[in-house]
Amino acid sequence: MPATLIALLHGPDQPGLVARVAGWIFARGGNILHADQHRDMQAGIFFQRVEWVPTGAVGVAEREAADFLVFSDSLGMQARILVANRRARIAVFVSKANHCFHDLILRWKAGDFSGDIVAIVGNHTALAEAARAYGLPFHHIPVTAETKAEAEARQLALVHELGADLIVLARYMQVLSADFLAKVDRPVINIHHSFLPAFAGGKPYHQAHARGVKLIGATAHYATRDLDEGPIINQDVARVTHRHDVDDLIRKGRDLEKTVLAQAVRWHLDGRVLVYGNKTVVFD
Amino acid sequence: MPATLIALLHGPDQPGLVARVAGWIFARGGNILHADQHRDMQAGIFFQRVEWVPTGAVGVAEREAADFLVFSDSLGMQARILVANRRARIAVFVSKANHCFHDLILRWKAGDFSGDIVAIVGNHTALAEAARAYGLPFHHIPVTAETKAEAEARQLALVHELGADLIVLARYMQVLSADFLAKVDRPVINIHHSFLPAFAGGKPYHQAHARGVKLIGATAHYATRDLDEGPIINQDVARVTHRHDVDDLIRKGRDLEKTVLAQAVRWHLDGRVLVYGNKTVVFD
Amino acid sequence: MPATLIALLHGPDQPGLVARVAGWIFARGGNILHADQHRDMQAGIFFQRVEWVPTGAVGVAEREAADFLVFSDSLGMQARILVANRRARIAVFVSKANHCFHDLILRWKAGDFSGDIVAIVGNHTALAEAARAYGLPFHHIPVTAETKAEAEARQLALVHELGADLIVLARYMQVLSADFLAKVDRPVINIHHSFLPAFAGGKPYHQAHARGVKLIGATAHYATRDLDEGPIINQDVARVTHRHDVDDLIRKGRDLEKTVLAQAVRWHLDGRVLVYGNKTVVFD
Amino acid sequence: MPATLIALLHGPDQPGLVARVAGWIFARGGNILHADQHRDMQAGIFFQRVEWVPTGAVGVAEREAADFLVFSDSLGMQARILVANRRARIAVFVSKANHCFHDLILRWKAGDFSGDIVAIVGNHTALAEAARAYGLPFHHIPVTAETKAEAEARQLALVHELGADLIVLARYMQVLSADFLAKVDRPVINIHHSFLPAFAGGKPYHQAHARGVKLIGATAHYATRDLDEGPIINQDVARVTHRHDVDDLIRKGRDLEKTVLAQAVRWHLDGRVLVYGNKTVVFD
Repeated sequence: MPATLIALLHGPDQPGLVARVAGWIFARGGNILHADQHRDMQAGIFFQRVEWVPTGAVGVAEREAADFLVFSDSLGMQARILVANRRARIAVFVSKANHCFHDLILRWKAGDFSGDIVAIVGNHTALAEAARAYGLPFHHIPVTAETKAEAEARQLALVHELGADLIVLARYMQVLSADFLAKVDRPVINIHHSFLPAFAGGKPYHQAHARGVKLIGATAHYATRDLDEGPIINQDVARVTHRHDVDDLIRKGRDLEKTVLAQAVRWHLDGRVLVYGNKTVVFD
Repeated sequence: MPATLIALLHGPDQPGLVARVAGWIFARGGNILHADQHRDMQAGIFFQRVEWVPTGAVGVAEREAADFLVFSDSLGMQARILVANRRARIAVFVSKANHCFHDLILRWKAGDFSGDIVAIVGNHTALAEAARAYGLPFHHIPVTAETKAEAEARQLALVHELGADLIVLARYMQVLSADFLAKVDRPVINIHHSFLPAFAGGKPYHQAHARGVKLIGATAHYATRDLDEGPIINQDVARVTHRHDVDDLIRKGRDLEKTVLAQAVRWHLDGRVLVYGNKTVVFD
Repeated sequence: MPATLIALLHGPDQPGLVARVAGWIFARGGNILHADQHRDMQAGIFFQRVEWVPTGAVGVAEREAADFLVFSDSLGMQARILVANRRARIAVFVSKANHCFHDLILRWKAGDFSGDIVAIVGNHTALAEAARAYGLPFHHIPVTAETKAEAEARQLALVHELGADLIVLARYMQVLSADFLAKVDRPVINIHHSFLPAFAGGKPYHQAHARGVKLIGATAHYATRDLDEGPIINQDVARVTHRHDVDDLIRKGRDLEKTVLAQAVRWHLDGRVLVYGNKTVVFD
Repeated sequence: MPATLIALLHGPDQPGLVARVAGWIFARGGNILHADQHRDMQAGIFFQRVEWVPTGAVGVAEREAADFLVFSDSLGMQARILVANRRARIAVFVSKANHCFHDLILRWKAGDFSGDIVAIVGNHTALAEAARAYGLPFHHIPVTAETKAEAEARQLALVHELGADLIVLARYMQVLSADFLAKVDRPVINIHHSFLPAFAGGKPYHQAHARGVKLIGATAHYATRDLDEGPIINQDVARVTHRHDVDDLIRKGRDLEKTVLAQAVRWHLDGRVLVYGNKTVVFD
């Protein structure tokens, strides 16, 4: 079965875009499986996710992917293209908390992800043994205030060495520097344990408890140099009452964090998340 | 501003459908605003909702609508097409309960619907005065076991006379006969006060309370000759506990019924609901 | 049937409180219908809502209410007590938006509230006619920057004249001054159209759209001198996507605002909301 | 720290029950931590969960537990009493599906349960290795139509030998016979992968897909001789669309099943679930 191609494109709206993209694919013998469009009427921006099967010749997918980028460029569109039989490689960064760690790995082993976890990177060794029990290499890169720059250099080298396409911060409790994020040059998905923009920063469950909110939340977003300010991919909330103390919020929050992060990773891997400005379009 | 056209089509899947539809529209100078596709891989069925602006000449929308049906027929597709500046006419059937009645009318007056409520039809007079206070004609057609056939004949005549495009049963507590539904020849949306298929039939809140469920629901569906078995458009649930007696379920359920029905009506009016077999595809 | 009494009390935790309160009521021939306790273990605070039927003698409820306050004082507890057959009087403040206005009135007329709306107070006349159609007096008190102090004086006088027990701000788009809130001396419930503390201040749906959140919310809270900072009574959220523009958020938000506000008012009227510090305990 | 006692009682309503229970505890030097009551007004039944700390003498908890049962009997109440420092022993029954299995064990290891998983019992060996990796004994008891009676006898013997207080069917795909359920004489919690009573019986996700529902659900209930008809402890739902095929429903459903079952087990272990007739009162 031939690889499908997935293109995510966006740019200034103009008449005929849907027809021209569909026509380009059809003219080369491709069959469109899914095509979703969105128009931001106020901003005049056109967004599209299109997934198609090219003709079956060997190597055609990669060639057609390259050609499509030239084509979309001629339309004035920015595009990202995925060849769907090329499974993404994922590096998972962890600290001590293990719920997202176990959850991501078990989902991956259950076949939920169109990508593969290739390594666990921890600033603590708390999850080293568990990682190895799953058959995953664990890389311990401790981070202190003094050694942060050096540690990030090691992380960068490791990410490149692993050929990772995606970094997932599974409750990794360190802030990545703007420098790291600039150099890493691949998407980094973080899970923040609040309904952003409420309770940005540290100890959000403590903040939520102090404020007396009736819902707690979790937010998966792309990490950017502005902490907790990156494009939001997914959010969810759970109801709490005065009966829940901070520990209960933390416990209930774990379920939110797991499902919100896993869904965001899944959408990303399936080529469903298009970033523009500081927002996302999720073609789900 | 020219009228937009909305086509809902479905039929046997085949390569090139997206491109051919887009190409047909583009060739005639139209601009596609939205196009959503879905493929049921197992059943081999292709579904599409496409919304476009034809060239601005007077009367072109109606002509192009007719032409499109010929075209979609040539593709082996069943299609329904809406001309979006033609507002649908809605007849609302009621009994005594007034929550969906008020809710639909207030949403309509708030501009939420791309259609107009043109009359209220009641088998009781409980809402007659309230209807008139909203400036809406109220038609009282009482129904008893003996007079049902005659009453339905009057309802049918009224629906045709009103030129209604849609009938909404806003907690209308009578079962419409298969004969009526066959003859009325336009969609009928009903709200059932349970999460179908649980608790079909009468007194669903009593059934729910007796069974001790932890969630109650509401279901908006197209009425068919098989009572409570028609294609489901929308459903939602709310959490209940042992503290809620049947009256509480009824009260909480009213909120569900209102929002679930209103959303279903809205989707229907926006040409977002495609019926096939006994199911719906909702392009939301 | 004799009036029930509802007491809300809180204070420093100490052994035997539940037994002493229950014993006090029992010794006077009362029968406890409901009694909910909560302990904030960290803060060492005890909270209780207890609802009971005193013996049936005429006038006993009022006397026992007064006696209970002396008793709870002897326990070192702060208490509020309601005599449940004394229906609260509600003044609803509005501006131009009508969704919460209609919703509250229709729920009241449906018998959902253990209190009565006695007047509508508007800084615009947009809802004057609709109020009168419901048989409710409408008081127009315009507010401008220059006349604010004077307008608030009129509002204060009106609230006292009406004998209102509760003020509900049903999308009343004016900030009440700290001076007004100090002098009004009765609870004021506001609905804020965001999931506080996210998007406090003006135009929260615009803020939410700009940030690209995936859920929008509404928050009912007691108004305090710190705008949008008062004790939260109720919150809820709804899912949104990139397909929703600001107008869609506003429309979807209306449903949230209605149900979140109505539930908060209902809980307040049923004596289920206990305020302490800047938080609430809701005995639902 | 002395053990707390938790009593769940219910019986015919009568005046003074709250005061008498509180007085009984207080008279013996106990301190009530939590006390929740519920009255089913229509059925005239009183329900209570009361949690208290008895005086600290050694062995007092067990004696007071026994005494309380005599006392509650004198009130005409049925009661169940837990001594909270006695951790319940849990046997988890599995087949091949592993999501609830991993989820329960990881929550247990995270300290979420006031009880301990002591063994895994499988009719297949699919999870044997994983169980042992968690340090848990795995008992393989295969079941076929011919050997069912014999297999259940082995299961019964094992449950007694393990001293299990609770059996959790974590997607155990065998129906337990009425005979087994009668003899096992301890609670059995099952997770059914639908929103019961909708889609009882086999292959509920296939049923849900065929019916075209817009929400899928999961239900945790006590197993009784009437398959899928036992008292419901917890339910939840998730939204689905036409885009979800049966495999997607199964995948989405796994998250529901995990959280719904884990919450039910947690509530059960915390003595929060009171069964009466075919319903539950959950004091959460």
